[in-house]
Amino acid sequence: MARLDVPATIRRKRDGHELEADEIRAFFTAYLDGDVAEEQMSAFLMAGVIRGFTPDEAAAMTEVAVASGEVVDLSGLAGPTVDKHSTGGVGDTTTLVVAPILAACGLQVAKLSGRGLGHTGGTLDKLEAIPGFRVSLSPDEVTAQVTDIGLAVAAATADVVPLDKRLYALRDVTATVQSAALIAASVMSKKLAGGASTVLLDVKVGDGAFMTDLDDATELARQCVAIGQAHGRATGALITDMSQPLSHAIGNAVEVAHAVDVLTGERPGRFRDLCLELATAALVLTGRDPDDAAAATADALDSQAAADRFRAMVSAQGGDADIVDDPRAVLPDAPVVGTWQAPDGVLVDVDTRGLGALAGGLGAGRQRKEDDVDPTVGLEFWLEIGDDTTAIEPSVTIHASTGEDLDWARGRLEDLVTVGEGAVPPPLVHDRLLGEDPA
Amino acid sequence: MARLDVPATIRRKRDGHELEADEIRAFFTAYLDGDVAEEQMSAFLMAGVIRGFTPDEAAAMTEVAVASGEVVDLSGLAGPTVDKHSTGGVGDTTTLVVAPILAACGLQVAKLSGRGLGHTGGTLDKLEAIPGFRVSLSPDEVTAQVTDIGLAVAAATADVVPLDKRLYALRDVTATVQSAALIAASVMSKKLAGGASTVLLDVKVGDGAFMTDLDDATELARQCVAIGQAHGRATGALITDMSQPLSHAIGNAVEVAHAVDVLTGERPGRFRDLCLELATAALVLTGRDPDDAAAATADALDSQAAADRFRAMVSAQGGDADIVDDPRAVLPDAPVVGTWQAPDGVLVDVDTRGLGALAGGLGAGRQRKEDDVDPTVGLEFWLEIGDDTTAIEPSVTIHASTGEDLDWARGRLEDLVTVGEGAVPPPLVHDRLLGEDPA
Repeated sequence: MARLDVPATIRRKRDGHELEADEIRAFFTAYLDGDVAEEQMSAFLMAGVIRGFTPDEAAAMTEVAVASGEVVDLSGLAGPTVDKHSTGGVGDTTTLVVAPILAACGLQVAKLSGRGLGHTGGTLDKLEAIPGFRVSLSPDEVTAQVTDIGLAVAAATADVVPLDKRLYALRDVTATVQSAALIAASVMSKKLAGGASTVLLDVKVGDGAFMTDLDDATELARQCVAIGQAHGRATGALITDMSQPLSHAIGNAVEVAHAVDVLTGERPGRFRDLCLELATAALVLTGRDPDDAAAATADALDSQAAADRFRAMVSAQGGDADIVDDPRAVLPDAPVVGTWQAPDGVLVDVDTRGLGALAGGLGAGRQRKEDDVDPTVGLEFWLEIGDDTTAIEPSVTIHASTGEDLDWARGRLEDLVTVGEGAVPPPLVHDRLLGEDPA
Repeated sequence: MARLDVPATIRRKRDGHELEADEIRAFFTAYLDGDVAEEQMSAFLMAGVIRGFTPDEAAAMTEVAVASGEVVDLSGLAGPTVDKHSTGGVGDTTTLVVAPILAACGLQVAKLSGRGLGHTGGTLDKLEAIPGFRVSLSPDEVTAQVTDIGLAVAAATADVVPLDKRLYALRDVTATVQSAALIAASVMSKKLAGGASTVLLDVKVGDGAFMTDLDDATELARQCVAIGQAHGRATGALITDMSQPLSHAIGNAVEVAHAVDVLTGERPGRFRDLCLELATAALVLTGRDPDDAAAATADALDSQAAADRFRAMVSAQGGDADIVDDPRAVLPDAPVVGTWQAPDGVLVDVDTRGLGALAGGLGAGRQRKEDDVDPTVGLEFWLEIGDDTTAIEPSVTIHASTGEDLDWARGRLEDLVTVGEGAVPPPLVHDRLLGEDPA
């Protein structure tokens, strides 16, 4: 490889040129080695955010990122291994339902999650709402558990994709987060390092998601799928709606309770429907016929096979397995529970991001890495767009730590809900990228 | 002022918004204070290089830059004070002629120069080719000398515009040099800190200049003039040709010799013509009638008044004043002098940048700050575009330190000169911005 001329590489990206994969690899490798300074990387990233990166450029970045840390070896597992990743939204706890369904359908699910910042905790925080649940598993424990029961959800070790951690910290302070290619490279580097042979992305779009524009979300999905395919993984994406909360629960313990309700067949609706869509899509990516896959995932729920897998996972990871039988008895309660009723009319619009922030304000999420998440607090938002509010009481159940918080939440809700006449419920899934060629 | 949100400011520039002057001031002041990190500034600059900065934004940056260091106080001087700045080119030593002309016309010229990097040395290096010449003057010495004889050319002190030094070091490694607004802010911050009430820019365009495109050069000139006017200085610009060497000399001692030739009336031609254009423009900026100004500057040369001022300056700064009477006897000689003859025909094109690099290769310039400049080496390029090469012998006189260098230079010249049929000499001045409103 020719000697890297760092300013010349930045200049080419500044001027809108596509870089060769070799040059991208050399540039990011030099950054890891300390030969590209932080200020040079940030100038490069800004140029790319404005000028754009191609899928080939993103794939080359991803390659360096994956190689920067440990790669989980799942090759010892029998059958296809699968990972599912959501770009994040409000009331989005599909992993707790989809992973058991897939395990019940014979796939191997080894999911490594981060904690992240946000209005509610991440998947690990939600699972830790279950008394006794342990998310720190060694690589050997993960492999043994997946071999045994088909699934494990554990904390990513510190050494997975260190390049991504460095880049994210830099992008966060330099306004260079907003790039489909960079987000895709970040997401996919972690998925590829996670070792699964099949990767399904759930790219959220709407005011409760990171991407609020369908075109942007589609671009992100395409970039992710292209990167995954370039690295030899069966990769697909659903682009799903986040213009209202996905499930009726927003928080940690409340989201776990609703997920268990879906697993045990006691909660039909949008959240269950999307979990089945995602699980079916993952099965299709492993080569299953679509109709056959849909039947298999529905049967996994109806037969309680998925619920059994969830119980087995909770048990294996030290949690109280009674949660499947009576989640609300096992999960911790909030000190104060109250309700709020919307004005009479049809729910026309909801400020989904605002609902997330409200749950965050109650203590469900974290602003900084060192913050603690309160598992007990959150919302149950019982309305969906198009619902007649007079037919559903209460509109919202509020789980708070103090009466003062409860009053604050009631006051905020008035601003977040728009009631009027005539509303068209948004679709659950905007698009599916499950074919061979994402472009 | 509202609290600065650094990533939000970067984001707005990234998305192509014009920032308020207050926000620009806050951002650059925070950078000086260490509250904007290098990587944040480089991302901001890259966004601005791609999206553009307005003259108002550049003026606000310039204001912070000027205030970051010492400002020279010329208010004690009688009459208008003037500074002239060239954006740099090959064979460009107009300061040595223009400053004495202006002093002879009654203006006060206190010019602070830097050394810079380049194919040949800067104005200070050229003056130091004169035995004994001293460029380190204290602010009091500068003021006293200008009061006495009307001109001084000295080294800028270390504390002038430290912000510009920091920014330039950052821009150099992050491919964010190429922005008319940033270059204008850099140039003008130094001119404003230099304290002169009148500022004339000589913006060079052509393959021997930093700007090779006339539109880019015009934009730079407009930005500079707008900044100067926004700060209450009489500011104007000429956009002048650099598609061939300005004077016939490229080097240090050789350029001084040719400048003296012009001062003493022994060298008519393009170089003399441009010096008169620049001096006249500066006089016009101070309020003189254009015809009157042109007559005054020509008379300053014809009467030897300008030559006398130059002699007085050399004398005052410790140099050998005999240089005016016999420059080639006073200036140091190169160890080896040889010639080169172009093929027969009309000079159609010359690689001006290549000629500069050739002089640099002989030792006339510096690549790094700590390099020494060899005052004796350089070229005399006797041809101009449109000349019949058979009428001018030699085509080039080469001043080298060794015979090997001389041979190398002869070999290079073959590649830099294009001889053919029919050529249109470029204009000397492309445009003049001397009115009230540069936009």
